Amino acid sequence: ALAAPAIAQAMPEVKWRVQSSFPKSLDTIYGGGVTIAETVAALTDGKFQIDLGEAGRFVPGPQALDAVQNDTVEACHTCSYYFVGKDPTFAIGTALPFGLNARMQNAWIIEGGGQKLLDDFYSNYNIVSFVAGNTGVQMGGWFRKEIKGIDDLKSVKMRIAGLGGMVMAKLGAVPQQIPGGDIYPALEKGTIDAAEWVGPYDDEKLGFYQVAPYYYYPGFWEGGPSIHLFVNKAKWEALPPAYQAALKAGAATANQTMLAKYDVKNNTAIRSLVGKGVKLRPFPRDVLEAAYGAAFDIYGEISAKNAKFKTIYEPWKKFRDESYQWFRVAEYTFDSFGFAQQAKGG
Amino acid sequence: ALAAPAIAQAMPEVKWRVQSSFPKSLDTIYGGGVTIAETVAALTDGKFQIDLGEAGRFVPGPQALDAVQNDTVEACHTCSYYFVGKDPTFAIGTALPFGLNARMQNAWIIEGGGQKLLDDFYSNYNIVSFVAGNTGVQMGGWFRKEIKGIDDLKSVKMRIAGLGGMVMAKLGAVPQQIPGGDIYPALEKGTIDAAEWVGPYDDEKLGFYQVAPYYYYPGFWEGGPSIHLFVNKAKWEALPPAYQAALKAGAATANQTMLAKYDVKNNTAIRSLVGKGVKLRPFPRDVLEAAYGAAFDIYGEISAKNAKFKTIYEPWKKFRDESYQWFRVAEYTFDSFGFAQQAKGG
Repeated sequence: ALAAPAIAQAMPEVKWRVQSSFPKSLDTIYGGGVTIAETVAALTDGKFQIDLGEAGRFVPGPQALDAVQNDTVEACHTCSYYFVGKDPTFAIGTALPFGLNARMQNAWIIEGGGQKLLDDFYSNYNIVSFVAGNTGVQMGGWFRKEIKGIDDLKSVKMRIAGLGGMVMAKLGAVPQQIPGGDIYPALEKGTIDAAEWVGPYDDEKLGFYQVAPYYYYPGFWEGGPSIHLFVNKAKWEALPPAYQAALKAGAATANQTMLAKYDVKNNTAIRSLVGKGVKLRPFPRDVLEAAYGAAFDIYGEISAKNAKFKTIYEPWKKFRDESYQWFRVAEYTFDSFGFAQQAKGG
Repeated sequence: ALAAPAIAQAMPEVKWRVQSSFPKSLDTIYGGGVTIAETVAALTDGKFQIDLGEAGRFVPGPQALDAVQNDTVEACHTCSYYFVGKDPTFAIGTALPFGLNARMQNAWIIEGGGQKLLDDFYSNYNIVSFVAGNTGVQMGGWFRKEIKGIDDLKSVKMRIAGLGGMVMAKLGAVPQQIPGGDIYPALEKGTIDAAEWVGPYDDEKLGFYQVAPYYYYPGFWEGGPSIHLFVNKAKWEALPPAYQAALKAGAATANQTMLAKYDVKNNTAIRSLVGKGVKLRPFPRDVLEAAYGAAFDIYGEISAKNAKFKTIYEPWKKFRDESYQWFRVAEYTFDSFGFAQQAKGG
């Protein structure tokens, strides 16, 4: 009889509203939020309930961060780089062009000091963060005309946002911001010449291949973009410890499952797309080289005027450079040799 | 008052003994078990307690699987390929030479059909499995003399177990099975000529560089070895659903955290080793090519006489080949270009 109240208190009913930044039609990335909700429910015998809203349900998309900050919703499942308009520092937690691949991104955030650097910044917005999904390297997008070299990018109107868009602008393209649902008609009419979206699985569903047959890779602006769970700090701190652990475990499970799903689904979708006649092309070397230079110029320009950006960027850059060096040793040679041998029919 | 008994029943005190296959000195891989225990405790307010034993504590190392099967311990945290002596099929869940990298391994097991195939096989041993750790590509090991080509492997006595050892034997080397603690003196005295262990972080602690200065890569027999949690099936089924969810979440957290730790620690250790004069070398091309051929010959030989192996191997091979093809597109070109550019001083 003495123990019962303590147990009851330890498992109170808690209901949270979590705003996803994704439509249900992007089932894999939206599904990361579903994984969090289902994991948390399973871990607490349904006592901690998460009501997940698809993009726009509780608040319009661009207000997801404000809504968490102001406690209109308890949390959002989102990409931090959607909020670069508030501060470009928000780009780093998701992906910087020519940055970390998915595995390095996890290493940096979880064990490489990234979590603290990011949360110090997010604390300005009353937020704590949990890495909760990754898409892997995205594709470079759909182009109506072939890009044979950097000159072919001049004046190309491309749907691409954030720092990727800034890089493309330095290469002569004209970045456009268009919601997902409006891309197809814009490409079809020629209002835009190119558009990036996610990767083969999500892209195939929107049918871009029917109006822009050249499919470029890699999406160098998103080498391993993390999706985050942003949680209102006071609401986080008020959770019982076991519910904090449940939310963390839900995020970790989503982080793992989303990438595994994309790796399986993209693998099927790329074959389907090629079967439909899609022209798969690597970006020309001169495009990549110019983009690489432009990207690091941009980071230098932002760092010069934004101390918050610089505080995270500098250790991030060191981690990135050293990870590139180490991954070149064992990981890259394992992949290189195996891929080449398999391609020869082995 | 009505609710209290139901809640108390939902969170009974459960104590499990989990046998790790690793010594505490391998803090990162042993630490995967610690992560599981800590996560499960946090998720259940300490009601589900895991007593983790380092290698040999509850039962001697080679008996860990039997001990789970016979319910001497409830679970073990291990590499399935330690048990290839029972059946070579146990190799597949951890790693086959020239198989999956860490990310493909997660994709195959979690979302690519691997979990069911493996658990159908493990059910012969009363076991259910959870992926619960990964080291990333391991290193190829320490050699007293330089290996300039396949002829230099002839009669080389190398500490390497399992299918990797079978491949090395086909190349003319003589595989040896030696416990970790005995490797250093054997290399020092020249009783053996070479030894593989894990990667820079774990290898540095054992000091092999002092007696065998050539450090080869990649460990092509372990492209992304999974560590598994093997759980006695009846004990698993008897757990309350929330505790099942806790164990799953603990395994998922360990799976993510262990790889992130290795990626950070190996990055530091490889620099330290190179600073100590270690001679870092890629395996010569003719060694890799001969090993590749030998590996797939071995899988064919095993498949011809072992239906259990064949049942898992064939869909695994299809998944592996298709993943190699897809990863070559976006992931590999992102890494290739970035690594090369960074190496040029970018």
